This record gives sequence, C-alpha cells and structure tokens, in this order.
Amino acid sequence: MEDINLHFTGDFHAIGAANNLLCAMVDNHIYQGNALGIDPKSIPLHRCVDMNDRQLRYTVDGIGGRVNGVPREDSWDITVASEVMAVFCLAESVADLKARLGRIIVGYTYDGAPVTASDIKAVGAMTALLRDAISPNLVQTLEGTPAFVHGGPFANIAHGCNSVIATRMALKLGDYAVTEAGFGADLGAEKFLDIKCRTAGLEPDAVVIVATVRALKMHGGKAKTDLGSEDLAALERGLPNLLRHVSNIRDVYGLPSVVAINRFPTDTDAELALVVQKCAELGVKAVESNAWAQGGAGARALAEEVVQLCEQPHTFRFSYALDGSIEEKLEAIATRIYRADGVAFTPAAKKQIAQLTALGFGGLPVCVAKTQYSFSDNPALLGAPEGFTVTVRNVKVSAGAGFLVALTGDIMTMPGLPKRPAAENIDVDETGKIIGLF
Amino acid sequence: MEDINLHFTGDFHAIGAANNLLCAMVDNHIYQGNALGIDPKSIPLHRCVDMNDRQLRYTVDGIGGRVNGVPREDSWDITVASEVMAVFCLAESVADLKARLGRIIVGYTYDGAPVTASDIKAVGAMTALLRDAISPNLVQTLEGTPAFVHGGPFANIAHGCNSVIATRMALKLGDYAVTEAGFGADLGAEKFLDIKCRTAGLEPDAVVIVATVRALKMHGGKAKTDLGSEDLAALERGLPNLLRHVSNIRDVYGLPSVVAINRFPTDTDAELALVVQKCAELGVKAVESNAWAQGGAGARALAEEVVQLCEQPHTFRFSYALDGSIEEKLEAIATRIYRADGVAFTPAAKKQIAQLTALGFGGLPVCVAKTQYSFSDNPALLGAPEGFTVTVRNVKVSAGAGFLVALTGDIMTMPGLPKRPAAENIDVDETGKIIGLF
Amino acid sequence: MEDINLHFTGDFHAIGAANNLLCAMVDNHIYQGNALGIDPKSIPLHRCVDMNDRQLRYTVDGIGGRVNGVPREDSWDITVASEVMAVFCLAESVADLKARLGRIIVGYTYDGAPVTASDIKAVGAMTALLRDAISPNLVQTLEGTPAFVHGGPFANIAHGCNSVIATRMALKLGDYAVTEAGFGADLGAEKFLDIKCRTAGLEPDAVVIVATVRALKMHGGKAKTDLGSEDLAALERGLPNLLRHVSNIRDVYGLPSVVAINRFPTDTDAELALVVQKCAELGVKAVESNAWAQGGAGARALAEEVVQLCEQPHTFRFSYALDGSIEEKLEAIATRIYRADGVAFTPAAKKQIAQLTALGFGGLPVCVAKTQYSFSDNPALLGAPEGFTVTVRNVKVSAGAGFLVALTGDIMTMPGLPKRPAAENIDVDETGKIIGLF
Amino acid sequence: MEDINLHFTGDFHAIGAANNLLCAMVDNHIYQGNALGIDPKSIPLHRCVDMNDRQLRYTVDGIGGRVNGVPREDSWDITVASEVMAVFCLAESVADLKARLGRIIVGYTYDGAPVTASDIKAVGAMTALLRDAISPNLVQTLEGTPAFVHGGPFANIAHGCNSVIATRMALKLGDYAVTEAGFGADLGAEKFLDIKCRTAGLEPDAVVIVATVRALKMHGGKAKTDLGSEDLAALERGLPNLLRHVSNIRDVYGLPSVVAINRFPTDTDAELALVVQKCAELGVKAVESNAWAQGGAGARALAEEVVQLCEQPHTFRFSYALDGSIEEKLEAIATRIYRADGVAFTPAAKKQIAQLTALGFGGLPVCVAKTQYSFSDNPALLGAPEGFTVTVRNVKVSAGAGFLVALTGDIMTMPGLPKRPAAENIDVDETGKIIGLF
Repeated sequence: MEDINLHFTGDFHAIGAANNLLCAMVDNHIYQGNALGIDPKSIPLHRCVDMNDRQLRYTVDGIGGRVNGVPREDSWDITVASEVMAVFCLAESVADLKARLGRIIVGYTYDGAPVTASDIKAVGAMTALLRDAISPNLVQTLEGTPAFVHGGPFANIAHGCNSVIATRMALKLGDYAVTEAGFGADLGAEKFLDIKCRTAGLEPDAVVIVATVRALKMHGGKAKTDLGSEDLAALERGLPNLLRHVSNIRDVYGLPSVVAINRFPTDTDAELALVVQKCAELGVKAVESNAWAQGGAGARALAEEVVQLCEQPHTFRFSYALDGSIEEKLEAIATRIYRADGVAFTPAAKKQIAQLTALGFGGLPVCVAKTQYSFSDNPALLGAPEGFTVTVRNVKVSAGAGFLVALTGDIMTMPGLPKRPAAENIDVDETGKIIGLF
Repeated sequence: MEDINLHFTGDFHAIGAANNLLCAMVDNHIYQGNALGIDPKSIPLHRCVDMNDRQLRYTVDGIGGRVNGVPREDSWDITVASEVMAVFCLAESVADLKARLGRIIVGYTYDGAPVTASDIKAVGAMTALLRDAISPNLVQTLEGTPAFVHGGPFANIAHGCNSVIATRMALKLGDYAVTEAGFGADLGAEKFLDIKCRTAGLEPDAVVIVATVRALKMHGGKAKTDLGSEDLAALERGLPNLLRHVSNIRDVYGLPSVVAINRFPTDTDAELALVVQKCAELGVKAVESNAWAQGGAGARALAEEVVQLCEQPHTFRFSYALDGSIEEKLEAIATRIYRADGVAFTPAAKKQIAQLTALGFGGLPVCVAKTQYSFSDNPALLGAPEGFTVTVRNVKVSAGAGFLVALTGDIMTMPGLPKRPAAENIDVDETGKIIGLF
Repeated sequence: MEDINLHFTGDFHAIGAANNLLCAMVDNHIYQGNALGIDPKSIPLHRCVDMNDRQLRYTVDGIGGRVNGVPREDSWDITVASEVMAVFCLAESVADLKARLGRIIVGYTYDGAPVTASDIKAVGAMTALLRDAISPNLVQTLEGTPAFVHGGPFANIAHGCNSVIATRMALKLGDYAVTEAGFGADLGAEKFLDIKCRTAGLEPDAVVIVATVRALKMHGGKAKTDLGSEDLAALERGLPNLLRHVSNIRDVYGLPSVVAINRFPTDTDAELALVVQKCAELGVKAVESNAWAQGGAGARALAEEVVQLCEQPHTFRFSYALDGSIEEKLEAIATRIYRADGVAFTPAAKKQIAQLTALGFGGLPVCVAKTQYSFSDNPALLGAPEGFTVTVRNVKVSAGAGFLVALTGDIMTMPGLPKRPAAENIDVDETGKIIGLF
Repeated sequence: MEDINLHFTGDFHAIGAANNLLCAMVDNHIYQGNALGIDPKSIPLHRCVDMNDRQLRYTVDGIGGRVNGVPREDSWDITVASEVMAVFCLAESVADLKARLGRIIVGYTYDGAPVTASDIKAVGAMTALLRDAISPNLVQTLEGTPAFVHGGPFANIAHGCNSVIATRMALKLGDYAVTEAGFGADLGAEKFLDIKCRTAGLEPDAVVIVATVRALKMHGGKAKTDLGSEDLAALERGLPNLLRHVSNIRDVYGLPSVVAINRFPTDTDAELALVVQKCAELGVKAVESNAWAQGGAGARALAEEVVQLCEQPHTFRFSYALDGSIEEKLEAIATRIYRADGVAFTPAAKKQIAQLTALGFGGLPVCVAKTQYSFSDNPALLGAPEGFTVTVRNVKVSAGAGFLVALTGDIMTMPGLPKRPAAENIDVDETGKIIGLF
C-alpha cells in the first residue's frame, strides 16, 4: 500500500517538476528583461509541492535586491491542484499533451493578452519531464485484479478524474472498465460526464452511485457523532439527497444506474431495506456492497447489476451544450443538477466572463468549484435543498486543460497540517518496513 | 543518458519531499501554538526544489492573514544543497540515517537552544520517504562497466561526494572502486578525505588528480577564449597550480597519486610533454586520458598506473585533527592546503564559533565553502597564489550531516536560469525520444 | 486658503506622530521580548501618513533579518482614518483625551485578551504630542465670521464630525453654533446625533439638511453629465431621497429642520419651486442658499429660518438605545434610518459580535461604514430604495473613541493618487505665493 | 524646551510630508503605467517618519493584489536622514530649493538613466509644502540671546549642519555668528568646511574645537565607567586625538582655532592644566568653558579668545579640490584628515564610482559616512591611530543636495527604540505641563 502512497512511480513528482520548471522559466523571463511584457501582477500560475503546507499559501518572492528576481505576490498549490495535473489527465497522447501544455496561460501582458507556456518555450522540456509519467501505471488489487492508478486532479478546481489515457487503455484491455469520480455525483459525475467524457469522446454504459446509510442519516440531520445507531426517521429525511443524484443521472444524462450501498457494520437491515425501497420507487436498484471486507465476492451482486445495465439501451446527453454563453452553461448546471433557482454573478465574475469570452474561451466546458457537502454552495444546506441561488464569485480559464473554472466559494488549493500531523506516527522499523502509514 | 538526468530513480524527489515535509512540520508547529518556543527568525532550514529558480532565493511566506501561517523571511535551496542530501550521503544504514535526520537543527528557541527534527517528530516519516532512495542505484557505462550513481550533495555548502553506502557497496563488489569528488582538489579531495573518509572510516589507496592543459593555461593568465592554440609559456606559468595540488596529496595526506590529463583535440604534444615533465620533477606520473573518446581503452595507461599505485605502501593522514578548536582546524586547512598566510574571522563568525563550541559542536570536521576558481577565497587569484589571508564570514553547523560549514564568501544555494535557458532546446519528438538534452 | 490646507496648525501631523509613536512602541515591545504576549497577527493598529499613498495599503514590515523587527503583515492609513483622530475629536479635555488614548486597543494576546495603549505605556507621550493640537483653531471667513477648524475623522470608519471641544467652545462663545457632519444625513447626521451628541451630551436645536437640485436629479436617474438642463421629471423621481432624510430628522430624532438648497446657476426656478413644494407637503421649509456666491447675505433667509426653528419646542431622541444588543442597534439604524427590511450578518461578523460582546463592548454606539451614494449598502440603488437588506461583514471596536465600527462593504482607509495627481499643478511662484492649489 | 523638541514649528513634519509626497508620486507613476520606465528595483528614495521605528527598516509594500500598488522592497528612514532635509539645509533661496528638489534622483530607468523629482513633476507641490518651513526659526536662550534653530540633516549620511539660509541670516543680523557641526571635527568640521562652506561660499574666521577631559581619557584607554577620577596618564595617552583635530584645522584648512574644554565637575585642575599645556605646545589656546552651568558668563574667556582669533589673518583652504576624481577626493580626506595610509574600494564601490562619473556626478564634493568613534573606520581604534586603511563599500549620489555619499560601514538611517523607550516616562500633568521629556 505504501508503494502507491509514497512517491509511487514518481508521476506526481514529475508533474510538480514540469509545473515548477514552467514557473521558473516565467519568472526568469520577466527577470531577464521581460521581452513579452508580462504583467507580474497577472500571473495565475503557482509553483507546487506534493505536501500540505499552509505556510506557502500566500508569499512574496523575488525579494533580496536587484539580482534575485522580481518581487511579486505568489502562492503555492498542492501538486494535484496544478493545471499541469489537469492537462496530464485530459491528454490523449504525447502530441496532445504537448499541445495542451503549450496552451497553459502563464500570465497576461499589460494589455491583457494571454501569454502561454508555448510563448515561454517551456513545452518541450515539460514534456520531457512527463514522458515516462504519461504512461499509465498498472497495479493489482490484493486479489490480483488489474487496475490503473494514473493521475489525480483536485476535484475542487479541476475535474477530479483519472487520466483519459488510462481509461482508454482499460477499455481496450478489459471486458468492463470501471472508473471513479471524486466528491458527490453533483460534482464528480457532472465533471466526469460533462468534461472528461465530452473532451475524450467517451460514453459510459452505466453509472454506479455510491451511498452510505451513515451519510444519508447526516443529510437527515443526525449528528456526525451519532451515526452508529439505527434511525429510520433521519435516514428517510436524508434520502432525498440520494434520490436527487439518482434522478440526475437518469433524467439529465439519460444513463442507466445502480446505487451501491457501502455497508457499515452498524447499518441495520431495516435501514438497508429503506434505501432499497426508496430507490425502487424511482425505478433504480440499490445493492449492498461489501467489497471493502470481502473483496470481489462482496461486490458480486453489484457487478451483476452493472453487467445487466450495460446491456440496456440508453441515450447519453450532456447537462449543457458548449455553444451557450458561459452564464447559460452555469445556469444549466445549477438549475438542472443542483436544482437551484438560478445563478448570481458578482461584478468581478461578470467582468471576467466578458474578458474570457472576448479572448475566445467562451466555448469551453465549465468546471464548477463548489462545496461537496451540499447541492448548494452553502455547506450547511443538507439533504435536497430548494429555493437557493448559487453565487459565482470568480471565473478563470484553464486553457491547457480546456475548461473554465467557476468558483462559488473560497477554494483552498493548498491544505494545511493539523495540530498533530499524521506524519508523527509514520516510521520505518528495523527491518525496513514502513509503519504507521494508516 | 536522459534516464540518469531526468528524475532518474526519483532519489532527488524523495530527498526534496523529506526535506519539505520537515519544513512544513516546523512551520505547522509554530502555527499551532509553538509549544517548543522556536524563534521564527532562527530557522536555518530551507524548503527545496530540484530546479534553478532565482525567484525563490529570498521570500516572505506565511502571509495572508490569521489562518495562513506565520509571516517570516524564508529561502529556497536547490535540492542538492539541502542538509537532508548531505545526511543521505553520509549515512551508513537506515538506522544511521534516522539518527542523523533526527539531529538536523530546524531552529533555535528564543533562548538559543537547538530544536531538532527529532523534537519535531518528523524523523520516521522522513525516513519512510527515503526508504527506497537510500539503496544505491546501479547503472552501467556504454561499455557495460557497472557504476553506482547515488546522492549528490552540493560541493559548496556540503562535502560534494556520493553516498557512503554506494562507496562501501562498490568496495565490496569490485576489485577496484573509483569515486569522484567535486571541484578542485583543495575542495573536493580535501572534503572527501577530511570529512567523508574520516566519517566513514574509509582509506583510499591512491588518488587520481584530473587536469586539463586548457585549465592550466588559464591559470597561467591566458584568456578563456584563446585556449585552443599552443602556449607553452602560459602553461608553464599555470602549472604551479597543479603541482600544489599534487604536493598536497602527497605531503599533507600521505597518499600516492597520478595526474590524469584529460586531453582535448587542440592540446599539442609539446604541451602534454611539459605537464608530464613538471610532474615528473615532483616524482609523480602524468598520464594522458582519452576515456571520453575511446572509452576504457583510452584510460588503460591511467588505470595501469592506478593499479600500480594501489600496491604502494603509504600512511594516510588528515589535514587536521578533530580535537583542535574550530579556528585551529580552519587555520590548518587554509595554511596547509590553500597555502594562505592565515585566516581572518569576522566578528559575526567569531561569535558563531563561540556559540557552536558552547553548544558542543566544536569537535566536528569543517566543511569550507570557498570559490573553486582559486586556492584563495578571491576568484581572481589564479595559479598558486601566496601571501593571502582567507576570511571566514560565517560558521554554521549541519548537525545531522555532522560537520561545520565555514563560509568564506557569498554562497549561492539556489542557482538561477540564464537569459536563454537550456530548457528551451529540450523536446520530445514524435517517437517519444527526448532531444536537446545535451 | 492654503494656510488651512497645507499643514495648517500642524494638528494632523501631531495626530500622525502620536499614532505612529504608539505603533513604534507596540512593535518595539514585541521585538524586545513581547512581555505582554501580543499576537503579531492580531494588531488592528496601523501607522498613518497624511497622504494618498496606495503603495502603503498592504505591506510586510519587520523583515531584514534578526535585528530589524518582527515580520508581519501591516497597512498604512491616511491620518484622518486613525483611531487617534476619532479619539481626539470625541475627547472632552486633556484628562479625557488621556483616558481615551489609554483605551485604544493595540492588539490581542494569543488568548484573545485586548492589550491597550495604556498597557504599552504610550499614553503620556502621545498626550504630550497632542497637547497643543487639542486646543481648537480659530479662523475667520472672508467676511470675518469666526469659525473653528479642529479635527477631521474619516466619515467612513469614524463619526465624521469636528471636535467636541471646538463645538463646546463655539456654543460658549457665540449666540448660535453651526456645525457640519460629512456625507448624507443617513451617515453624517446619524453619527453626529447618535454618536457625537450622545457621547458629549449635546442636543441640537435645529437641523439644516443641505440639498442640491443636481444631486436630486441624479437620484432621479439622470446622467451625471447631463445635470445642467431642466428636468422636472427626474427631479420629482429623485425627491423621495431628500424627503426620506427630512422625515428621518423629524420623525426619528424629533428635531425641527430646514432644507437648504445650495443653488447652482443652472438650476431653474421651476426646479427650485418643485423642491420647495414637496418639502412643504412634509411640513418643512426649503430655502435657497447662495452663501457660496454672496457670503452671509446669500444665506440670510436660511439663517432666519434656523433662528426661528431654534425657538420651537422639540424632544430629541436617538435612533437606538445603547442597552440593546449590537445586532439590535444595527437593525434599528438599518430599518429606521435606511428603511431596509433588515440586516444580514456574515458568519465572520457574527463571531466578532459575540467576541466583542464577551469583551464588554456590547454597550457602545455603532458607527456604520456604508456607501454614501445610497440609503442601502449598494451604491447603485438611488433615490429612496425599498425591499433591501444591509449586509454587515465585519464588526470591530474603537475602544478609545468609544464606538463599534460595522463595515457593510470594502472600506478604503488609504486613498490612492489618480493618474495625473493634482500635486502636478501646484507650485510656488517667484514671489513665494502658492499657486494651483485649487 | 519642549517647544523646540516636540513638533517645534513643524519644519520636520513639512520636510517629511514633502519627501513622502515625492515617494507617493513615484510609486503612483509606476502603478499608473510607468511612462518613464522606472525600474522599481532601482529606487533610492525612502519614505520617512520622524520616529525611531525599527519595524520600518526593511519592508515589502505595494502588495494586496492588482489594485494596490506594485510590489517592491522598500525602507523607511528617520526624517533627518532624507535627502529633502539635506537639500533644505543647503538651499540658498526658494528658487534654489526648487532647483535642488528637482534634481533629486528618484530612480533609474531600466537602462540606467536617472529619473528626477522634476521628471515626476513633484517639485512645485513639494516646495509649497516647504514654503513656510524654509524661513529660519528664531528662538532665544534662557538669557535672551537670539539663536536660529533650522534644519538638521543626519551627520552620517548627510553633512550634519544647520541651514545655509539661517547661517547667512545670522551673519547679517549679528556681530558674530557661531554655528555648530555634528560629531568629531574629522566628520562635522570636515563636512561643514568642505561641503557647506564650499557650496554656500562661506568662509569662517575661526574654529572652536570642543573637547572634554572625560572623552580624552576614554581615547587614552580608560573605561567609560571610570572617567570620574583623575588619571593624568590616560589623559596624556588620549590627547593626541585632540591634537590631531587641532592640527587638521590649522594645517589643512588654514584656520585659527581655540579648544573649548567643556568642564565637568569631576575634572581636576591638574587635568585641565595638562590639556592647556599640550595645546599650547601646538600654539593653540585651550580655554575652560562653563556655559552649561553659568550661561554667558561661563564662556566669557572663550568668547574673548574667539573675538581675538577673528581678527587674525588666515588663508582658508579645502582639504580637497573638486576637480579630482572621486577616488582622489576620498584619498585626500582619508590621508589628510583621518591620517590613513589610503583607501580601499570594494568592487561594488568601484563600479558605482564609474557609473556616477559617467553620469556626470564626478565633480561633486564627497560626504563620508564613517564612525564618529575613531579617526579610522574601525570604532575600536581610539586615540590617533596610524597605519590603517579606510574601506569604501558604497558610493551614491545625493544629486539634489549636491554631494556624493561614500559609506565606509553599515549606516543606520532608521534608529530603533530601546527596551524601555524614553517615551514611557513622558506625560502631561493635570496643569497641561509636559513632564519627563528630559
């Protein structure tokens, strides 16, 4: 397990190095006379480390006098939040990787024209750094089932799914390819379907919506510390959250689906039965999954349902068309997926939308950064809230990844360590075995 | 070749990650209440990236208001300049690695007491990150000769030699083990012999001093742009530089040696002959080496001389004893190896020496940071200068590595990119081959 | 005129010096060991200059290594925005000045306890710097009418009226004392009445509400560039803005009032008549004032109305009582004066209100920082808007001044210079006369 | 006394305001598009406050995102260290003040061309701010003797004498005008004579060299804590310091002089006699002065000697001519006044001298920043040291003041407060009297 979690094949380090090379070349360009006229205040690019390091969230660098760079405000992101990571995961080939890297916007001139990684002449070297990482990593489960582990863009400011190359390779090599998308289906599935599938021309045959009884009880208002005891009333109050996801997949995207209930030891049979019943009322099966404890055997019923679903006819649709305005796309996601009354745009966001449209980025899909705790942009609105408006504060472009990012709140792209970091427990024993990792 | 130069086995990334984890844990400790009372102005530790990035030389981080760290001045080093790299290269085993990591000083309390990586509880996790990297990497030359490539501490603020573990493994596995030390013999050999050999209990049988006719002509005052034409006068003026190195190895360290002349196509036979003659006058053979062009065959004569030297009796001595004062050790290196008149200490350096001695670090070997362009601390004093004094401006401890660092000038621990970075030429062609790397 | 506008009697310089001494002593205290345990991230105090200097809005100071202060994020304000200025204007005497200066909060301990200027032992020296400035400055108009010019707290984050001492002296020395309050009556009059009058125990006999036909036409939707032509329709649409102010003074505060119409040359008689008529419908006289052109003679009718009003019986009331909660006071101002539906508090503001209440500041009056362009907190809502909510984002205490400050938007406490600063036109001619000041 | 020490007539505030206006206009110019192409890293100008404020020595300002200035490293000086202060003190008239202000260099273009206050169009407004301050301030001693108190440039980075206008006015209004120059005669007198007198065309008739027995005993090696007891041996060892000053005035500058011994109660008659005797051997009278205790009566003998000296013929000469190179001028001061063996220039200083000469500033007088504790640049070399070299580290131009500044050490232009600031003792009592100021 630690082979996957520590360094693994070095992909994340390679992505970090490619990103940091680009940053160093941009600042060096400005320092060496700034022939392209980049406004140092306009640089959206951040260096990255694969570390939770609060101290690097906001910095001033380039100080130390005349020979040590150009002073500016800067920030560091965790590697997975870099646009290089998103680019890496959406690239179809080395050639496409190069093209996407080349489109990454590293800053704007004083007149507002974008300057790209290609203008900075960083693309070849970045690609060299990524050449090996771009090949998917084949691993196996404890039971020997093959799996690809490849890429991991942050689900808040990026699309949150593994690489297109790995998915495509899985489709080639196996009878069935199962992939995963981060956060709730309003975020993970939405981005997988509207961004990754659209960009790569993929079409899923069926969708597994993962749920837990515990989470549904929380959506029903039960305290986090009190989820271990049976509470059918709370569960019933929380179920509309699940059902909204289920209906989105079927009605908006037109895909067959099954609900996988990740069963916890404290879940009661009555609770399971209630979930199954409510899903059945919507015409969708809910199936218990115990893969976490029993391996493949624990997921056999689920797998059989998936196999059956894959045979069903369906018509896959996106939640929005690319040719609408940026505002229209956001309205579509908000009203159709989140079920909001509509979207409010701050004056800053309106201005950004106008600029991005003028720069020709209006036709890209939109990646929404939103809390994963609620269908709305307010983490306190649990269950299946109604009558709310989503506020978009900030819109920017990831031109290399090929999507717009709409922020609906404060997005953290560099986590911090807790008071007692998990690292304090990790060690290598005298036999060279790593302990305390989990 | 690019396999060695890009990421390689990920060792440098692992070292960077271990170092950066330590830094994040130190700043997090301060942010979370600073139970150890670390003075944020006292932190000698720098985060690192494996990149030439001028912009990071001097920074302020931890800004952004109450929840984003603690404001302080900070710096980034290139990975090879980190103490973790030096520790890595001097460790004898995983257990020794842990012990050394634990001794790294991460800061001082307001009362001046050292706080270590062990106090911060970072050692286990750092070791976990280094567990695989600590195993030497076996590569082969184009002719199939095995070689270890393992570790690479900066020769200016560290000792500049590969890992002890790799050297020891080479000694175990081969008939002869050849290793390399960076910069001129006044720096590379001095540190290899006085620090690495002493720390690891190694004793070399013979020394190869590498020279070029071109460099000697530069030491004789010839312009860098004019080294391609024969100039016996300049060569003769520059030869005392080489002869001083030769005499140091023999007279100070008591070791047999041979001079390897890395021959350039423009070197004339007369020039070669002059070098051979002058070395012969000192009783040392100078042998032409053409390994760079002809592989093993081009170095046969050199190798035979080395084999012969290894059979000779000798008495290896250090240039200074550990039990002298810090000042005495520096005096010994300066007068015996550099042939200076003596050492001047700035008031700051004197104060630091007193503090380090009081903290119990007086018995460590001393790693001198000095220009590689001159025997003196003035890069303009070529040849074999005399009548100069070396000024020590700054003395600090690398407690994990186990040496003191004495700075005799401004030491750059983070290089910058040139106006036209080499990265601009690097690319990956349509077959996936990396081009432009050299 | 330049005597009043450049340096004048040095009061603002003295206030700046007192404020900056306090700041220097606070940072020195932290640097010298921080015996009081002040959290450097908690310091609400800003240094000030009497200059529009954008560059100083956000800074990091205390850098430069160990002997040059303690790094922290900092800001500079324009002198009039300092709490010392507000304190200066509300002080009743030197003794009261000292007491108020002593209560200024300069920071909080790591445990959240306030640290005051008194704790820092700065009060005596600050008072010494203010000793002469605290005496009001007597000037005269071109016609020889005496006037006090004394103090000038920013109307956005402070109460926006001249000093209590000057007002009291004017009341002692003249038959009638007229004073001025900045911005619209929802801000200027509200703070004058609810803060200054309450704090100083003053009770006005009558209120002059100043209006211009041009401003009312803007409130009626007419473009700023088009105010010179008669437009009775726009005027009629804008008049509810004025009438709301008039009704506030009468109905909320219980004071007699008159509207002074500052007549512009382009105002037509029909426009004037319309204002007079609408005010008369509310039972209030509107009187043309031409003091700007004709001096005292131009304001005779206005003055006679004021004299007459001063004889009328009235019962002065505040818009809110001090013994309500902070939220209740803000609700009262918002609903009674602005005529909002209510007040929304951000989570940050709620937390601050709870903390300030716990620290014992719940009983202070509230100084609202709000745009002067609208009754609401949205500058685009002109006229007499209804159906809006005011959002309070931030609540802090000016403990020395003796009020809470509630921010309803981004408040700028340091202006910037325009592209072509007015200073470029100022000069001193060969006779020593200052030119270009206006 | 506090009238002079607190604010006084506001001159220092006016100078600070003029300086800070210039700084704000420079940063605003850069922010508003930087039409003049000023390199933000090249700005030698610092904002100032009239305060000891360590926290402001090194800062980063202009942060806070796009609309809040341009990030750069910055520093604050104490007001007296500003070039505006030096300009103010050397100006002959308002017209000359304007001309000098206009020549102040505010930065350099990316190509190294100077940009002046005149280019920034700040001169008129700065002059307006200084218009009243430029008139000398007439005060009187306790005995009613008139005195001008006007201007006060820092003696380390400026010339350390009061204003030319005040000196000239004193010469017009009195029979004798006495003026004062800061630090020892190697600094104060040298700059007064070589800079102020040369610039203003003044020629003194006689020089009073002030000495104390206590200081001479310190120069003779006696501890500072032990100066109260008679020690003729120490005094004799220290006297060469005084005699060197005396000989400089006579032999280098060609001026008649008298030594004024500021007598302390603990000085013994024997000590006084020794000073008198040694001075007499050089042909110069030493006269006891007790003006500090007895007012004018205590200085009668001194005054009579001065009157007598003023009648003596003399030929005033400068210590160096303006038409030599910068190096030659510094050599002249060092060898003739300090009696050094010569001057060493750091590589940085050499480069600066070349640049300043190329820019046309080679013909200006040189203001040396040197420790006041020694004739040398090493504060520990007391008495009349010989055999030393002065090292010039940094040369810059004060183009408005009209001199070059040569730094021979680290010059502090912003003092800090001590652990227990004097401000803690200052207060205003209930009668409004300031106490604790001295």
